[in-house]
Amino acid sequence: MAYNSVIFRLELDHAKVNFGDVASVISKAGGDITSIDVIRAGQESSIRDITVSAADAIETHILGVLQELDGIRVVNTSDSTFLAHLGGKISIQPTLPIKNRDDLSKVYTPGVARVCTAIHENPQKAYSLTIKRNTVAVITDGTAVLGLGDIGPEAAAPVMEGKAMLFKQLAGVDAFPLCLDTKDTEEMIRTIKAVSPIFGGINLEDISSPRCFEIETRLSEELDIPVFHDDQHGTAVVVIAGLLNALKVVHKQMSDIRVVVNGIGAAGVSICKMLLAAGVNRLVPVDRDGAIVRGESYSHPMWQWLAEQPQVEAVPGSLQEVLHGADVFIGVSRGGLLGAQDIKSMAPDNIVFAMANPKPEIDPEEALPHVRVFATGRSDYPNQINNVLVFPGLFRGALDCRARRINEPMKLAAARAIASVVTESELNAQYIIPSIFNEQVVAKVSRAVIEAAILTGTARRIPPDFR
Amino acid sequence: MAYNSVIFRLELDHAKVNFGDVASVISKAGGDITSIDVIRAGQESSIRDITVSAADAIETHILGVLQELDGIRVVNTSDSTFLAHLGGKISIQPTLPIKNRDDLSKVYTPGVARVCTAIHENPQKAYSLTIKRNTVAVITDGTAVLGLGDIGPEAAAPVMEGKAMLFKQLAGVDAFPLCLDTKDTEEMIRTIKAVSPIFGGINLEDISSPRCFEIETRLSEELDIPVFHDDQHGTAVVVIAGLLNALKVVHKQMSDIRVVVNGIGAAGVSICKMLLAAGVNRLVPVDRDGAIVRGESYSHPMWQWLAEQPQVEAVPGSLQEVLHGADVFIGVSRGGLLGAQDIKSMAPDNIVFAMANPKPEIDPEEALPHVRVFATGRSDYPNQINNVLVFPGLFRGALDCRARRINEPMKLAAARAIASVVTESELNAQYIIPSIFNEQVVAKVSRAVIEAAILTGTARRIPPDFR
Repeated sequence: MAYNSVIFRLELDHAKVNFGDVASVISKAGGDITSIDVIRAGQESSIRDITVSAADAIETHILGVLQELDGIRVVNTSDSTFLAHLGGKISIQPTLPIKNRDDLSKVYTPGVARVCTAIHENPQKAYSLTIKRNTVAVITDGTAVLGLGDIGPEAAAPVMEGKAMLFKQLAGVDAFPLCLDTKDTEEMIRTIKAVSPIFGGINLEDISSPRCFEIETRLSEELDIPVFHDDQHGTAVVVIAGLLNALKVVHKQMSDIRVVVNGIGAAGVSICKMLLAAGVNRLVPVDRDGAIVRGESYSHPMWQWLAEQPQVEAVPGSLQEVLHGADVFIGVSRGGLLGAQDIKSMAPDNIVFAMANPKPEIDPEEALPHVRVFATGRSDYPNQINNVLVFPGLFRGALDCRARRINEPMKLAAARAIASVVTESELNAQYIIPSIFNEQVVAKVSRAVIEAAILTGTARRIPPDFR
Repeated sequence: MAYNSVIFRLELDHAKVNFGDVASVISKAGGDITSIDVIRAGQESSIRDITVSAADAIETHILGVLQELDGIRVVNTSDSTFLAHLGGKISIQPTLPIKNRDDLSKVYTPGVARVCTAIHENPQKAYSLTIKRNTVAVITDGTAVLGLGDIGPEAAAPVMEGKAMLFKQLAGVDAFPLCLDTKDTEEMIRTIKAVSPIFGGINLEDISSPRCFEIETRLSEELDIPVFHDDQHGTAVVVIAGLLNALKVVHKQMSDIRVVVNGIGAAGVSICKMLLAAGVNRLVPVDRDGAIVRGESYSHPMWQWLAEQPQVEAVPGSLQEVLHGADVFIGVSRGGLLGAQDIKSMAPDNIVFAMANPKPEIDPEEALPHVRVFATGRSDYPNQINNVLVFPGLFRGALDCRARRINEPMKLAAARAIASVVTESELNAQYIIPSIFNEQVVAKVSRAVIEAAILTGTARRIPPDFR
């Protein structure tokens, strides 16, 4: 159950009510008062901000009770989530102050002209003399935002801003959100290419499938900076990281396991590709109509690609049918698809990553008795598969070595680096993946990404502090 | 003469040279050593950073002398202007730290979903719950950057970043630079519209004429946020501000003066329009082929518009010819067009704004004996006509009242506000315009702009602190 902090601003008429009455009413209604601020105190009345911790569903109930109380006026209600977003969640700061005309003539006219000329003569100098070196665009069209679907560019902005916060706090990357007022594939590609010169990288976000595949592929080909659709590859990288460690726990090899991936959208396709790159030999991709079968024909180009891979099984069946005897289940689909019986039909020492949000493919309480290693996308169970583990370090590395693109070896290196943060002695079924607040993650991921970029020839420089 | 701070990083071979020799060589070459940092000290050699203040022209001379000195190796040279640009001049900061999972669940998933939903249900909430409220895009295509011309989007970035610094430092506005990799009018319009949802305003910058007119006009019509091409209107607003005060100094009225405007490009057109709006009855726009004459036909749509205005004179002539007897000369053209004789041919108590950069239309030393009020775009003479006086306060006001656009009354109000910062007792021929560091400017401009926006019905809200 989700708890929220709500601030009720109340005006109390002292002739009719005292604070003790209010406190007791709130407690009876299920709220827990955590702080009180007196905003205005007077003889006849006073205004106070009362912060109440309460379950989501109870907030409205408390408000109703307060409104009915004689002598109380509810001035306004604000919950702490909305307050955290007020005025936006990022700001832009000058890196140095302009104190006088001398400063101004350096950072602006006339001095800036010499800097512009230097870049005009050698465009690579944009990396040292502008924000390009450290700046990433977080770009969406608002068509597949969280579980909310197509809510449009304005409504998508809070997610993009949150991502920009994480980029900076976790990896020191400057990220700016752009929310596009178009859903047309070609126009999105044109727009992103047109705005690209100031950026050192492009993080695509919450763009619906199948347009996201074309947009990412084309941009990667047509731009010389890294382009990364986080919903596809961020999830895939962290799934592989978790799987690497889960396999150690159950003493199985990547080459031996039979893996069922359910939900072949943006994330599912990338997970399947990475599983194959990581050495999986028996793969069963499943979508709404059941298993995607080797040798069949599909109109979805990515499904067709999967049906052509030798490691994909040639046996049709429903999710329940193909799950029988599987070593690993990876779900990026929707909640409540599976029951305990389905999980029990898997091979011994089974691994289940049920990542549908907010409700996993199988209820954790129902699954846990029958699973050896269990992971979800949620923070209230062990083993949270969270792509916040990936993008900060991945872009930190890509920017530092000025990678032209983010290729498969760089993603696989990132997955191995995340897995390596959990030491052999720490590793167990309840701890296969580090916390996003673990300070080793970004450093290890970025280092591994730089190494892979250099080895694959996509790095344009070796960072000075890279030995 | 422009002075620059240059840092020479030198390796000294102690067997061959000592620091005294180096210092004396630098002094003899015309450099003034302002600081020394020892980077590495050793028995046989040492590395030092020697900061030298020197005239622009002498820098290279000093470098040559140092390179010839036996026992010296010049490791590298960096001047303070380039150092100020290193790594870019703005950064993006979270407005609050994410300290734990509870914070994360507010600013990112799952809590952010409620905020997204609230904006989806009421898009106006983007103004309170995202950065839109305080964020402006500074957009260029790099086609008319300073006096450098078409240097492309990458090379234009340092100017846009400098502008973003000024927006924040002077007016608290968050500004982000976008440098477009296209010069096509329609594609620029499409691109800017597509990226507009996150922004509360658009500042167009350094876009060449005549494309800039169409781009600004179309965007103003098609977007519901203010769009402002600074090269046109920023200059025009500050010219009108200076002229209002200059007329007070010479005791003339706007309605009586004859004004010659030379250079009918982006800025010149806007200056002419604002002069007419401010009440000028006798206007002579001049470009390379001489005066633009009422009743003639022109292919340039803005020249044609001017030729249709009743206040524009119907007499042809060269710049020199039409300047004869003029009260005011406003130059936004190129350096060295006029001589002392031309200025002497003007009416008594003449006003000359010679704003070509870096070399004004007439050499200040030559002009000053024959001009009553003289202004330039330069900071080394009194009366600097600098559009940094305009855009910070103008956008501060437009954002605070959520103006749909920036209209003529708002620009005129901004001009009057800038002029009003110079009090009657301070006003004289050498002080008609305030310094950009004058702290009253932004407050007065933004207030005047809000007032005009409310009166003309383009404001979408009255700011709470506006009485």
